[in-house]
Formats: sequence, structure tokens, C-alpha cells
Amino acid sequence: MTPEEFRAVGHRLIDWIADYREGLADRPVMARTEPGEIKAMLPASPPEQPEGFDAILADVDRILVPGLTLWQHPSFFGYFPSNVSLPSVLGDFLSTGLGVLGLSWQSSPALTELEEVATDWMRQLLGLSEAWSGVIQDTASTSTLVSLLCAREKAAGFAMTRGGLQGEPTPLVVYASSHAHSSVAKAALLAGFGRDNVRAVPHDEAFAMRPDALDAAIRRDLAEGRRPCAIVAGVGTTATTAFDPIAPIAELAREHGLWLHADAAMAGSAMILPECRHLWEGIEGADTIVLNPHKWLGVAFDCSLYYVRDPEHLVRVMSTNPSYLQSSADGRVKNYRDWGIPLGRRFRALKLWFLLRAEGAEALRARLRRDLANAAWLADQVLATPHWRVLAPVPLQTLCIRHEPPGLDGEALDRHTLEWVEAINRSGSAYLTPAVLDGRWMVRVSIGAELTERSHVEILWSKIRRAAGAA
Amino acid sequence: MTPEEFRAVGHRLIDWIADYREGLADRPVMARTEPGEIKAMLPASPPEQPEGFDAILADVDRILVPGLTLWQHPSFFGYFPSNVSLPSVLGDFLSTGLGVLGLSWQSSPALTELEEVATDWMRQLLGLSEAWSGVIQDTASTSTLVSLLCAREKAAGFAMTRGGLQGEPTPLVVYASSHAHSSVAKAALLAGFGRDNVRAVPHDEAFAMRPDALDAAIRRDLAEGRRPCAIVAGVGTTATTAFDPIAPIAELAREHGLWLHADAAMAGSAMILPECRHLWEGIEGADTIVLNPHKWLGVAFDCSLYYVRDPEHLVRVMSTNPSYLQSSADGRVKNYRDWGIPLGRRFRALKLWFLLRAEGAEALRARLRRDLANAAWLADQVLATPHWRVLAPVPLQTLCIRHEPPGLDGEALDRHTLEWVEAINRSGSAYLTPAVLDGRWMVRVSIGAELTERSHVEILWSKIRRAAGAA
Repeated sequence: MTPEEFRAVGHRLIDWIADYREGLADRPVMARTEPGEIKAMLPASPPEQPEGFDAILADVDRILVPGLTLWQHPSFFGYFPSNVSLPSVLGDFLSTGLGVLGLSWQSSPALTELEEVATDWMRQLLGLSEAWSGVIQDTASTSTLVSLLCAREKAAGFAMTRGGLQGEPTPLVVYASSHAHSSVAKAALLAGFGRDNVRAVPHDEAFAMRPDALDAAIRRDLAEGRRPCAIVAGVGTTATTAFDPIAPIAELAREHGLWLHADAAMAGSAMILPECRHLWEGIEGADTIVLNPHKWLGVAFDCSLYYVRDPEHLVRVMSTNPSYLQSSADGRVKNYRDWGIPLGRRFRALKLWFLLRAEGAEALRARLRRDLANAAWLADQVLATPHWRVLAPVPLQTLCIRHEPPGLDGEALDRHTLEWVEAINRSGSAYLTPAVLDGRWMVRVSIGAELTERSHVEILWSKIRRAAGAA
Repeated sequence: MTPEEFRAVGHRLIDWIADYREGLADRPVMARTEPGEIKAMLPASPPEQPEGFDAILADVDRILVPGLTLWQHPSFFGYFPSNVSLPSVLGDFLSTGLGVLGLSWQSSPALTELEEVATDWMRQLLGLSEAWSGVIQDTASTSTLVSLLCAREKAAGFAMTRGGLQGEPTPLVVYASSHAHSSVAKAALLAGFGRDNVRAVPHDEAFAMRPDALDAAIRRDLAEGRRPCAIVAGVGTTATTAFDPIAPIAELAREHGLWLHADAAMAGSAMILPECRHLWEGIEGADTIVLNPHKWLGVAFDCSLYYVRDPEHLVRVMSTNPSYLQSSADGRVKNYRDWGIPLGRRFRALKLWFLLRAEGAEALRARLRRDLANAAWLADQVLATPHWRVLAPVPLQTLCIRHEPPGLDGEALDRHTLEWVEAINRSGSAYLTPAVLDGRWMVRVSIGAELTERSHVEILWSKIRRAAGAA
């Protein structure tokens, strides 16, 4: 394809995407395709001869679009907001169009240096001290794995350079809240700790980790001959946006010499609001933080920020230095390949940089405050309505709610909950995520799509009452 | 930003990218910026107020573009070809514009099902049997880590569900060629095996792993009470594109019950050419394969194909199943989050699908054959010229060459080599990668940028001779 052909199709694609974004609200939020339906419409084998873009774009419209769940729809209240704001989309287009690769600083200096600058801009917006160095990873799952690998090697005195985890006489133990994201246990298991050495620390009535229970768990492991290694604290857990209390947890980490990783994947974006920072008070006592601007803040996926206090330790765990990647600039520059798992890296800073410049910090803060106010409004409505409960505190923009009509409990209540939420999701008019809390199904309402205004939340609330009344 | 504003800036950006691609040949291939130069030109703090796209694009031109090394330049002969072909760029634009996330099948069914179809199209093009299931990872580094984690858990009988690697009485051992990519050792160390348990198996005179040496290493470990676990075979190594002989290696893997991972990151693309498939004869005996269509084949980075014979085992190692990710479709669909490390996933299949449809298989094969012929031509020239050596076989498109003028050897020869290659790189007229082979510096010439025609290779050869004569 020549640049001229690209220009022609590219203009059509820009219009297609603009139209698509403009028409989001008129489409069903959740895809209603059956398993295998899309696959069955696609040819089983690749073409030998080129096909024109008319045919390709027609298939996008006819086959793919009906199979999308629309994360930017104004009535998307599922999982978490993933805003993919349009300035960030443009930044990502530039990244792909430039097609440069970050294997080393030299393989594209601008890629590395803009990443340093953009992650430092975010550090400032979040109110973090200058002690933190940032890098972009793909997801919080990967960032947490990287953090636990660093914790493992710190506790084991760089056993990776000898017998690895296999040579360790004393099992290392990882602690996280019983409400920690599934990626924490996954990371610990992949890092080789083993499920026997991962502790789910009990939570309090607000679903936050109990420091006294953490302390007890650490002491029990020490008494039984194991070696406490790392704590993962949830800064806004997935189910309820609970905030594990960082300050006392960091105090325990210091007392016992443990690594502390703060998982602020979703809620970290809120820390651009000074009034929210009390929620992660003590964060400077952590060793590493992950937060995903590709969620609520609006950066196009994937852009997970990983902040570390000791980049030298990170590099020692992650570095490779084959001759074909050496350059005369080494020692004077950052080689981000040594800050994570992949060697090749996209120019991901562009999508963060475009967003911050095109929106400006003030507008980003205003949008997040709008969402907080919408969530508070909805919480008030639910609380004021008989037989409805808000099941957890609402520190940010996620509500956990349940309709508890008289006489319904146990599995019958579960069936009722799943029936009304599925009725809404199937209708295509809004999208919510059911989840289990304390053994019972409830419904998460995650507010924060860029297009979601108060009116959408009002309509949602009437839809919810209607669906639950009918269910 | 409204869709209408996006439309306006988007059209400008398409033109910008088309112009940039059109003008590539007129720019220096390698960035000539000094460390810190770009950072110093960027504001130290983020803007409070929005900035217009005029200002942003002006900074792209003024600050960023001079700091890029141009991987798609027709005179880019560095590292490996990373073609980021324009149809694939458009597919990636669509992915970002759609902004959907694959957390589960339900979170966007089309994302999952197109990935199944596109990876299966590639399987067919590569001549692999139907026994393989594909998934897209970000890079070969990650794919190899995933493979070694699966190998570890298979050998250890899913120790991750108990004491992890910490509970294993017998150390597990990983084998790879002494010419394996740096990511292999990195993956083994991250997976916890420990450097003491990673064997660099000696190579033959063609830089390929010696099966007899592998067999001896396995037997030695068994005799000494360790447990051989996995072999990573290089299908086209990084330095010289050597092919570890898969058939006898697979035979040893079967005999000893070892896991076999084939790292075909760069060279795997060549397997769309039936005449190249003898180079990975025996590949059906592997457990996993990684190959990167984001290199020579032309898919926009990142798109690393990971093929597995036993997806159930993979899912058992990688799966998480929290309530908030469950859906009524589970059990009838693939949830690719359980096929790798990250939970969130981009719609990466689009960029592969766009490329295959817009180019067609025949054109892709023709382009790769052109590059093979260009490499063969250059090898003939080098071989026919006094004091020049081709240091390794040239099975594909990478040459390892050295100028050895009479009287120069040892460190003086190294200095000469680095001088002439750096003179070319600094000139901006072409880009080559120096690397160490058998303890001495040499120069890798990697042919295969989409724009590289015979004429560019001819000009390169005269540049090389001139630079080496003058150095």
C-alpha cells in the first residue's frame, strides 16, 4: 500500500470512527451475539489475492460491530470506565503511524525521553514526591507481576543469579486483602510463590484490609518458619473500591522489612484530585505503585503506569544486555526494556501526552469530579428507596447495590439479582456488572464513561427500579 | 474532544502520516540526538489548560521526529525488519478507535472471535497442522515467559497450587542454545529457575544448537540429581539466524519427557514460504511456538503469535475466574485473558486481519522472496571481495559480515569494525547493527524493510566498502 492509498483509506477510516463515536448512544451497549456467531461469518481461510477496503470495511460494519460491547457508551456502567478519549486515540494513531520501536534508547530516543517526561507529568498530577520514577507497562496484571518478581529477588538476595526460587530454604510469603484483584494471586503464582504462601488477609466492614489481621498473619508465618516477603495493598479494590489503609500497612512493611506494592489500577486516577489523596495516605511508604490512566482518566488502552522508588533494583531484576542491543549512549540513558518484561516497546507515551495536552489538567479534574457527584447522587437515591441497599461505602464512582424485596433471601435473592441485571444488559440500554460480595450476588454500578452525564444516571436508576420490580 | 473535532484533526493526522511515510527516504535513518536533548526541549510540568493541535503537531515535528530512528526507511538494515505496513496501521487505528477491551469473551465477542480466526489463518499460511491453537501476545519475550511457566508447572505437577517452586525438592533445568535470544535467559530467571539451572548448550560451526551436546547436558543433570524441564529451540537465532535442528531436539524432548518451546520470533514469518519450511522440520514435535508477524511480515507492533498444542494446560496455569468476570457464555467460548499474563487486551487481531486481507498471501510471499534474493545477492558480493567475510550461513535475510584487512586482528580489528559501522550509522544514510560473534565484533545486515529494493542493497554495499576503506 502506498502512502497515497493510505491517505485515501485513512480519511475514510477517520470519518468512519467519528461517525461511530457520534452514534454510540444509539447502539445497544452490550453485544448480543451468540458464541461462535461471528466466527461463522468469517472465511475459514486467508485470501491469496488482495481485497479492497470497501470489502473490509463492509465486513467491519456487518460482522464485527454487532459483536462489540461499547465501553464508551454513555450508559456503560460495567467493569470500570475505559474512556479511550479522542485526543488519546490520535496520540495512539501517531504512535502506530510512526512505527518506531523502543528496544533501547538509541532505537528511538524520542520514545524513551517522552515516556520519562509524560510519566513525570503524571507523577506531579498525582501529588507523588520526586522519589518516584515512572515507566509505562501494558496492564496492572503485568505491573503487579513485575513488582512481585522484584520483591522476591530482594527478599531472596538475588537468588535468580544462583539457584532461583528453587534454591531457597525458607518459603517466601505474599500478603494481600481477601478483596485483592484476581491478578494479585495470579502474579504470585506465576512468580512461583505457590498458593500455600499467598495469604488472603481478612477485611473490615468497609471491605478494606485489616492491619491487625495483617500483623497477625505476618507473625504467624514468622513463628512457623516462613519468611514474609511482600504486601499488595489495594488502593480501590475491584468489587467495592475499598481502600486498604496504606499508612499502617506501610508501617508494618517497614517494621518487618517487607516489600509494599500499591495496586491503584482503577482508583489511582482519582489522585489527580487533591481532595481524594487522603484515600492513599502513606503512599510514599510503598515500594511500587501501579495505576491505569487507560481506565477512568481516558488514555487509550494500553497504558499502565508503574512507579518505582528504586529503579536500580528493578533494572537488576529485569535487565538483559546482549551485544546487539548495546550502544555508546548506555550508562547515560534509560533503557526501558530493563524496566519490564517485553523487549520491544510501542511509543505509548504519545497517547498519554496527547491527552494531557489536549485536555489540560483542569478539565480532567472537572470530569472526574462530575463522576464523583453523579455517584453520590445515585447513592442518595438508592439509600432513600425502600428495599434497596448500598452495600459498601462509595468513596469514588462505584456503587454496590442490591434490591432486597421482603421475603427474598439466599439463592432466591441471588436469582432475583441476576435476573434484573441480565434483563437490563440484554436490553442493550445500559450495561452493569454483577459480582459476588460476602457470598451473595450484587450489582456494581461503575460511573465514569466520558459521555455519562447526570441525565444518563437518572435514566439508569429508573431502569433499574423497573427491571427489579418486574423481575 | 467531540467526534467533529476528532474528524478535523484526524484528517490532518492522516495527511501528516502519509507525508511522513512518503518522505522517509529523505530523512536520516538513525536519530542523531544526544542523551537528554529531547527531554530538555519539553516542558517539565503538564499544562493546566488545553492546548491546540497546532501546537502539539508542531512539537511533534520540531522535537520528536528528529529523535526517531526510522525503522521503515528503505536503508534500515538494523536489528530486524519491523515493517508496520500501512494496511496494518489502518487496522490498528480501527482497534484504537473502537476502544473495546477484551477482559472476557462477553466484554467484546468480536475481539475474541476475530483473534481465533486471524491466528488460524496464520497457522494455515505457516503450514502448521490443526493441532495448534493461537493467541496474540505482545512480544516474544512474554510468550517465552508464558511457555516456561507452563513448562515449570507441567514438570512440577502444578506446584503453583501448593508450595510453588519453593516446595520443589529437585531443581528443574532449562536448556537453550548458547546463541539463544537474551529473552530466554530472562524468562527462565523471572520464572524462578535460577541461573544455575539454565544451560547454554554449545553450538556447531553454523551456530546451531548441537543435539549431542544437549543430550549430554540432560544426562549430566539427571546423573547429578536435577530434573530436566524444558528446551527452548531457536528457529532463526538473533545474531546469525541459525536454526537449531528441531527434529532431533524434539526427539530428545520426547525421550526425556521435556517441554519444547520454539522461538521463531523473527524467522517464523519465513514459514509462509513452503521452500523455507525444511528449516523448522520437526516443528510439530514442539509444545509451543512464538513468532512475531510484527517484524518482517509487516503487522504493526505489537503482535506476537503464540501457538500451543495444549490450550487446557495453558489455561490451567494462567486462569483467574473472579465473579465479576463470569458470564453465562463461559464454557462455550474462549476467554483469552486465561491464555497470557494481562487481563485487559486490545483488539489486536484487526491489524493482522487488515494486513492479510489488503495484501493477500501471494503478495506477502513475493515480498519475502524478494528480500531473500537481495540477501543472497549481497552475500555473493561480500564473498567475492577480498578481505571481506560472511561469518555465518545466510539461510534467510540476515548477513553477518566483517572486513578483515591484512594485519588487523584482535582488538584492533574490533575497533576497525565499530568505526566503519558507526560512521555509516552516524551519517544517517543507512543503519546497521554491530554485534559480537565468537568474541569479536561483526556487523549484522538485516534486509527486509518493505521499501528496500535491490538498488538500496547495492548502494549499501558500496557505502560499506567505502566506510571500511576509510576507517
